[in-house]
Amino acid sequence: MKKTMQRLQQQIEFVLEIDKLKQIYRQNLLVDGSRRENDAEHSWHLAVMALVMEEYAAKPVDLRKVLKMVILHDLVEIDAGDTFCYDLQAGEDQKEREQKAAERIFGLLPSPQGEELKGLWVEFELRKTPEAKFAACLDRLQPFLHNYHTNGGTWRLHSVTSVQVRKRMAPVGEFSPVLGAYVESLLQDAVELGILDP
Amino acid sequence: MKKTMQRLQQQIEFVLEIDKLKQIYRQNLLVDGSRRENDAEHSWHLAVMALVMEEYAAKPVDLRKVLKMVILHDLVEIDAGDTFCYDLQAGEDQKEREQKAAERIFGLLPSPQGEELKGLWVEFELRKTPEAKFAACLDRLQPFLHNYHTNGGTWRLHSVTSVQVRKRMAPVGEFSPVLGAYVESLLQDAVELGILDP
Repeated sequence: MKKTMQRLQQQIEFVLEIDKLKQIYRQNLLVDGSRRENDAEHSWHLAVMALVMEEYAAKPVDLRKVLKMVILHDLVEIDAGDTFCYDLQAGEDQKEREQKAAERIFGLLPSPQGEELKGLWVEFELRKTPEAKFAACLDRLQPFLHNYHTNGGTWRLHSVTSVQVRKRMAPVGEFSPVLGAYVESLLQDAVELGILDP
Repeated sequence: MKKTMQRLQQQIEFVLEIDKLKQIYRQNLLVDGSRRENDAEHSWHLAVMALVMEEYAAKPVDLRKVLKMVILHDLVEIDAGDTFCYDLQAGEDQKEREQKAAERIFGLLPSPQGEELKGLWVEFELRKTPEAKFAACLDRLQPFLHNYHTNGGTWRLHSVTSVQVRKRMAPVGEFSPVLGAYVESLLQDAVELGILDP
């Protein structure tokens, strides 16, 4: 029992530490535009999307794994911070900072549980497996929807162009033709509405 | 393709609607005490706990189902609001309000997807299956940890006693002896520290 309690205590420390994700704010706004969204909210939203939109994955996915991935994918930002996807300069040392963060945060867990969960994060980052590709689709689609529905949101704030957005959204269409077609139609719409620069 | 796009549009409406969960604030504070937690953050936190603490379920659980349940379990609060678990008066018409909310919110989805997800919420509420029991453990353990680590948090604010907390936490020990023992030790500790009335 003592060993079990020590193990549990280590897991509880991890559970308490990751509370900090609720205070890592992203660039995009909530759908009603009232404030910026945080990483915990974003991760939860992706999880709901995963279970509602599984049917649009071009290849069968293990939903349990997708859910795990989207739930964990941003934990590294507790240490590394949110890197705005259109900020190329900040992106330079992002990989290194996130790698260090993953070592520390997943390292709070007992072994080999920590390594297993870190492995899921690495898999997400590499974007090779169907689950990682699907998770990447959702991770791009969600803020895209928020930007569209907040009158251009981050696009307008940072003068992002449709060329940049189309490039950023490419993985969506590559793994999910249906979601890709949907994104393209909103993208054209956004340019016509004047909430996204051509 | 037109039918698919109509179906997807309906799912997207649901995805946009549930963004409101990020603005339903609960009684408990974040671990650093800086502000109250919202339902989306809470649901995400339960999902992480589910995948880290699966081993403490007394009976084997289908983790995919547990994850779905904890991700969806509070959606009804978009309409019904957060009901403080120690507020017996507010609890009276809670079931009815939540039932109505479930009809509306899951009803945004195409059929039978909406019914399926609503079924998971009903299963969570009934607390009969191993998955629902485990999800209920986590749903109690998480705010308990927050209250303990915020110097009594909601307990002190609302003069909750250890008798009330022990009763509220009973389902944890019933389904998970390890988590139950952990809770009991923190509970005694909280009384000794004077952050929870005996």
